Amino acid sequence: MAYQQVVEITSNGRGTINISRDIAFLVDGSGIQTGLCHLFVKHTSASLILCENADPQVRRDLEAFLTETVPDGSPLFHHTAEGPDDMPAHVRSILTNMDLTLPVSQGRLVLGVWQGIYLYEHRTRPHHRQVIVTIID
Amino acid sequence: MAYQQVVEITSNGRGTINISRDIAFLVDGSGIQTGLCHLFVKHTSASLILCENADPQVRRDLEAFLTETVPDGSPLFHHTAEGPDDMPAHVRSILTNMDLTLPVSQGRLVLGVWQGIYLYEHRTRPHHRQVIVTIID
Amino acid sequence: MAYQQVVEITSNGRGTINISRDIAFLVDGSGIQTGLCHLFVKHTSASLILCENADPQVRRDLEAFLTETVPDGSPLFHHTAEGPDDMPAHVRSILTNMDLTLPVSQGRLVLGVWQGIYLYEHRTRPHHRQVIVTIID
Repeated sequence: MAYQQVVEITSNGRGTINISRDIAFLVDGSGIQTGLCHLFVKHTSASLILCENADPQVRRDLEAFLTETVPDGSPLFHHTAEGPDDMPAHVRSILTNMDLTLPVSQGRLVLGVWQGIYLYEHRTRPHHRQVIVTIID
Repeated sequence: MAYQQVVEITSNGRGTINISRDIAFLVDGSGIQTGLCHLFVKHTSASLILCENADPQVRRDLEAFLTETVPDGSPLFHHTAEGPDDMPAHVRSILTNMDLTLPVSQGRLVLGVWQGIYLYEHRTRPHHRQVIVTIID
Repeated sequence: MAYQQVVEITSNGRGTINISRDIAFLVDGSGIQTGLCHLFVKHTSASLILCENADPQVRRDLEAFLTETVPDGSPLFHHTAEGPDDMPAHVRSILTNMDLTLPVSQGRLVLGVWQGIYLYEHRTRPHHRQVIVTIID
């Protein structure tokens, strides 16, 4: 059996949005006891990550790492028509992934105590994003 | 139900090959309406990515980024018996992943408008590659 | 049908542990013929990778790459209460992933000849880690 929903998210520009509760809620509603929960972002400049959820500094440090490793406006990049953050957003999305699969156990989404699910917007301006959630057993 | 096929691909050396149509065709043929499509490359020096599919410069810029970040012949690497591109190919594959899972909805593979599925060959010489496709509901 | 087990692993600190046999054994025991095997590590400072399994130098070179790319004690990082390896462990886990999905075919786990499944401990001190294994058809 597969249960599928679309989660709509509007970002405020570059940064992370915790979607753990939305996903846990969909798993609860699916009635699936043992299986998998798959998340997919239908874009090439946003991604889905698992990250430490207690100290917001972790996500600021992650952003600092990506900013240094894949700099906006890098002379390496020639795909610049949409701005200096466009090509870095594609690279960041590929490095951090557009798909994520989590276990479902005893009818609940399985996450470690310190794990949160985040949509990571990599463009500097706000964007509307769709996450397809598929729960399967 | 699980439907499985092997897609055989011969690369021309380092670079990306768009396999979106092959995968969409297999999803169509599977008869599965709502579920997941999983792709797996059985190698450690090639990977599977989702990437912007409209401007080929995006994939050239991605290649420029990986060439700079994981340089062929880097003095960091001592596993060099197969050549200066061998160890970078392993690192690139780990950073960009050998598995990829996509949703299936209303009998079709779900991809964003700008998303393409690419096999990424990381060795400089041509190689024969196998992708295992599993479609499940 | 979904079959689920927890694999418990104690690491000796930073480095890789080959868990391919444990996972193949669970797939054999599941009775599932065609499907998927999903692995999930319930932590934010350890990850799951596929890596070349013949020459241990490959994993030493990968570690050298990650040590240089995400250095312990980097001045970029301010989340340092748990030590200089803590924030790098979060970044390494995000770059190399906490989830991994593999195909099951003819009742066996599918891996390429040179592919091994490794738990990658990114903290310098030993840790107890849990991997949730879900096999589904």
